[in-house]
Amino acid sequence: MESLDKLINELSRLPAVGKKTAQRYAYFLLGEPLEEVKEFALSIVEAKQKIHYCKICANFTDKEICDICAKPNKAPIICVVKEPKDVTALEKVRDFNGSYHVLHGVINPLENKGPNDINIRSLLTRVNEEKIEEVIVATNPDVEGEATAIYIANLLKPLGVKVTRLAQGVSMGSELEYTDALTLSKALSSRREM
Amino acid sequence: MESLDKLINELSRLPAVGKKTAQRYAYFLLGEPLEEVKEFALSIVEAKQKIHYCKICANFTDKEICDICAKPNKAPIICVVKEPKDVTALEKVRDFNGSYHVLHGVINPLENKGPNDINIRSLLTRVNEEKIEEVIVATNPDVEGEATAIYIANLLKPLGVKVTRLAQGVSMGSELEYTDALTLSKALSSRREM
Repeated sequence: MESLDKLINELSRLPAVGKKTAQRYAYFLLGEPLEEVKEFALSIVEAKQKIHYCKICANFTDKEICDICAKPNKAPIICVVKEPKDVTALEKVRDFNGSYHVLHGVINPLENKGPNDINIRSLLTRVNEEKIEEVIVATNPDVEGEATAIYIANLLKPLGVKVTRLAQGVSMGSELEYTDALTLSKALSSRREM
Repeated sequence: MESLDKLINELSRLPAVGKKTAQRYAYFLLGEPLEEVKEFALSIVEAKQKIHYCKICANFTDKEICDICAKPNKAPIICVVKEPKDVTALEKVRDFNGSYHVLHGVINPLENKGPNDINIRSLLTRVNEEKIEEVIVATNPDVEGEATAIYIANLLKPLGVKVTRLAQGVSMGSELEYTDALTLSKALSSRREM
């Protein structure tokens, strides 16, 4: 069945979805009433049509400027993240009152992604215009995230802004026995007095 | 963002998809070009509109009668399964030349599903009209699958047709140490001479 094969192909484009899961999703959808399936498909197209990047921070929004950027009395701090989902994760913490800047990627030479392929340039303008005092580079603590953080720090330091990085160490609730050596080494060298 | 929340809600209706996975799928779709997202949504609606139940076996098909039922010179054997995906699994074996009958569920008193809520009645007609010699009841080897198999066997036996059940025993490649007691007990009582 051509239309079923096509549906399974499309569904297996979703992240971490293989043929088997895609087939499971497809059979589920075929078993639902037509009206609900139409609603399902419509919600996808509608979200895509309504949601775009915030003009300031490049996070997803359905307005011109996202809710976070539009908030008054924000702290003059920008938290730089790789992806919109990182903003969602950080917003759950609730004790950050600054704004965000979404890079939509990190520098990755293996994937041919250079500094111009991610949303860095407008960060410089923002630091000047919004009188930012601190930029927290919250890219992931992996090779590409670290490289991107160093690149951004080097760009920003001449502007006189403080550039910081999330602390690295052992996770809360984790067990030392199962913590990898690199994390332990970082936690040791950043140890603090009690 | 209402449209994003709605999309995440819809996506989390997929089987075994929670809020977090749904959010991941949503962000992936928002990051894709509009044309491809439209294609994705269209494939869902198109499959749903074109695919329906085969008039004979109730498996999914985009024709009036599915490819398996339309094959000439089939063995006079019907294999009864719970869901369309079971047909896909069995067809991979390639040494069954009969046809299928999809119940679209099993008898499950806890979910208020009785014999009339699944596709059993047309099985009786088929056994008579297609001069079927054997019915293999391949419902799952769990409580509901077993109960449904017994119900079907009792219905069919008066028609003089042979009713069989898939053999139960240890899986190929499995280790006895990790096989559950019920499976071991079934495997023991159905042991065969070498």
